[in-house]
Amino acid sequence: MSVSTVAAAPSVCAPLPVLGRDVTVPLVTGGEVAYAALDYAASAPALQRVWDDVAAYAPYYGSVHRGAGYLSQLSTDLFENARRTVAEFLDCRDGDQVVFTRSTTDSLNLLAAALPAGCQVFVFETEHHASLLPWRDARVTYLDAPRSPRQAVETLERALADRDPYGPALVCVTGASNVTGELWPVRELAAAAHAHGARIVLDAAQLAPHHPVSVADLDVDWVAFSGHKLYAPFGSGVLAGRADWLREAEPYLAGGGASRKVTRRTDGGVDVEWHDSAARHEAGSPNVIGAYAVASACKALTEAGFDTLVAREQYLVAKVREGLADVPQVRFLSLFGDDAPRVGVLSFVVEGWNSSHFAAALSAEYGIGVRDGLFCAHPLVRTLLGSDPQTQGECGSPEAAPGEKSLNAIRVSFGAGTPDEHVERFVRAVRELVTDGARWNYRTEDGRCVPDTSA
Amino acid sequence: MSVSTVAAAPSVCAPLPVLGRDVTVPLVTGGEVAYAALDYAASAPALQRVWDDVAAYAPYYGSVHRGAGYLSQLSTDLFENARRTVAEFLDCRDGDQVVFTRSTTDSLNLLAAALPAGCQVFVFETEHHASLLPWRDARVTYLDAPRSPRQAVETLERALADRDPYGPALVCVTGASNVTGELWPVRELAAAAHAHGARIVLDAAQLAPHHPVSVADLDVDWVAFSGHKLYAPFGSGVLAGRADWLREAEPYLAGGGASRKVTRRTDGGVDVEWHDSAARHEAGSPNVIGAYAVASACKALTEAGFDTLVAREQYLVAKVREGLADVPQVRFLSLFGDDAPRVGVLSFVVEGWNSSHFAAALSAEYGIGVRDGLFCAHPLVRTLLGSDPQTQGECGSPEAAPGEKSLNAIRVSFGAGTPDEHVERFVRAVRELVTDGARWNYRTEDGRCVPDTSA
Repeated sequence: MSVSTVAAAPSVCAPLPVLGRDVTVPLVTGGEVAYAALDYAASAPALQRVWDDVAAYAPYYGSVHRGAGYLSQLSTDLFENARRTVAEFLDCRDGDQVVFTRSTTDSLNLLAAALPAGCQVFVFETEHHASLLPWRDARVTYLDAPRSPRQAVETLERALADRDPYGPALVCVTGASNVTGELWPVRELAAAAHAHGARIVLDAAQLAPHHPVSVADLDVDWVAFSGHKLYAPFGSGVLAGRADWLREAEPYLAGGGASRKVTRRTDGGVDVEWHDSAARHEAGSPNVIGAYAVASACKALTEAGFDTLVAREQYLVAKVREGLADVPQVRFLSLFGDDAPRVGVLSFVVEGWNSSHFAAALSAEYGIGVRDGLFCAHPLVRTLLGSDPQTQGECGSPEAAPGEKSLNAIRVSFGAGTPDEHVERFVRAVRELVTDGARWNYRTEDGRCVPDTSA
Repeated sequence: MSVSTVAAAPSVCAPLPVLGRDVTVPLVTGGEVAYAALDYAASAPALQRVWDDVAAYAPYYGSVHRGAGYLSQLSTDLFENARRTVAEFLDCRDGDQVVFTRSTTDSLNLLAAALPAGCQVFVFETEHHASLLPWRDARVTYLDAPRSPRQAVETLERALADRDPYGPALVCVTGASNVTGELWPVRELAAAAHAHGARIVLDAAQLAPHHPVSVADLDVDWVAFSGHKLYAPFGSGVLAGRADWLREAEPYLAGGGASRKVTRRTDGGVDVEWHDSAARHEAGSPNVIGAYAVASACKALTEAGFDTLVAREQYLVAKVREGLADVPQVRFLSLFGDDAPRVGVLSFVVEGWNSSHFAAALSAEYGIGVRDGLFCAHPLVRTLLGSDPQTQGECGSPEAAPGEKSLNAIRVSFGAGTPDEHVERFVRAVRELVTDGARWNYRTEDGRCVPDTSA
């Protein structure tokens, strides 16, 4: 089935305007082409609306908190309002805290630092490293990759029931896989966690940009996401959820802003009283522009109508899958099977191709930006590829020569700003490369696969 | 001596264009006035050049590291080039690492997490909280406030010589006080530290925006600064310096980007190989725009000629000090005396005034944004005010009623973007308020001192 047979659904909305939509890039074969940004799962372009909001605010930027000036007070209000906007976007419960971090990775490291004593952590081996690795001071149980949502719930239930001692526990689970795009049964996992006296944090890095998230409905204890994947690449992320563990934890960073009162003791030491609010974990001058940008993106997605954005993305997912369904050399990676619901994140390998070579050709010959590698989810990708854990796996140096069996994969991902043409070009490019081969030679230079222009 | 007698030095350059230079704000007394941002020590406006660079780059923003597309590779190059620009700006040594953090606070928390086992920390009680508090896992010696640069060096030497055991040690010292603006004898303190087998980190949060910093010349082991004080308020800061402790430390954040290889073991656990480079401490997608903005500011300051910027700032410092020299009610806070070299950061109290009231009047009646409080340097400000440590000290709620003796201070601070008029207006406003009193009543609402408009 070729892509031309996928009819445009008349109900599908237009893409949201994003920065870079008019950027052209050179092709190794000559000429320029509009850049097709298809690496949203790593970092999405800024929504034009987010940029416009940032640009309108930037002249009014001022120091926050104790600044007495007009712009300081305006900026302080705007920063605190950003929290409320994010809380509404996530449908948080009364009393939940919204902490601004720098990214999902940072959010989960913060939560890891806030675990109560003796807390065990349960995490599937299929998580990306941001969810897999932060729990350094805890006893971590890594759960085997499930092959269905139901198996995921059963695996978790068994592990939680068997934990010894049966003490405090945290489950960390992705909402949508950054490799397969597949949705995880978050509500069911949350119910399982709570039934077994555990808590759960939702890693919504790949979910929040693509799908509405309701903390209250899903009944998760915390949720984490990144601004740079949510069309607001200005250095801010979010951890939102229950206040109790956060309030009781040592401040994540120690410094001004987190401290309410600092006193030199008569014995020469120093006493500190810390804030109980979100500020407790936000020492230092906050990234006001970053937080404002995240809030702007939350508003923009809500106002655009998340249901129509989801419908559009599903239409693009169908374009990719149907457009490549009759290309046997293309194998999509999947845990839960072809029919599993997913967001606009798909990874695949192409038989007979080195994935880095393939990705380089998509870039150099078609102006398409995808990603190759193990996507900072090494165990999952190796499981899906069936490759030996010891063969390779650097998030940066796939050294297999062109033509060898691929030891890593290619990921295409898109979202609210992606026009049909990008996905259509991608499908056409994959078909042409598979059928006709690359028109150029490629070599590895400084860990990158690049066109060989030395000939 | 009134401000009009301070002649404009013909050699003083014009201010650098900054965002917000045309912003007007309402006055409680009616009308609008150009906003005078005089809280640079908390957060400086973005240089127009920095904003222009960010705006030009933003459409080309792409995912970094493993992205195969043109914009990803461009963004990766730009991010890594930003490190080199910062290293040049700081005159780093060969082999020094530049780690992008979110702020000085974050940088020092990172270094605190990288201390070798048994490392003792020496810090003057006069530091702001970002330097005072991060050393939570170390034995910290708080040194008494010195009353001269020489006394600072002697105090440090004595403490280092007397340390027991005579093991690894780190000194953390400010380059310029965020309260008094006074320069600290960094080179001499570094020499003292090294003579006693200790290392030293320079907190350049207030120095780097106002004064050239040479890591090599000062012979400090690390330097930390914040983008938001260096005219680049996009959520990035820097820790730069010796690689060894950083390379040997556990990663600051655990996650993708910091991990080179992650493998599930046959016993169910997970093995991680971490990067040795700066990426080791930068897990998660980096704040590319923030890092680029910092690099842009570094270039802009260098190209403007730091010596001429210093000369301009000194001219503004003189305007303030000379303009208020004959107002006995105004007392500037100082550790090292009136003649000590300083940057454009001055704190003061006004006899008979509550500082919050005074700062609110500067804002509401003159459109001037300063700061009141203890400036996240509670012990120092209390020492300089001679106030009882227990009376108050929240970095956010000075509740003394208008007219009472001030328990906190007012800080005015400026820099490369400050026009003469802002400082002249400030001097005039202080003189008028002292002479004529405020024209409005003020009250405290939600921890802020605001004009009472209820009458």
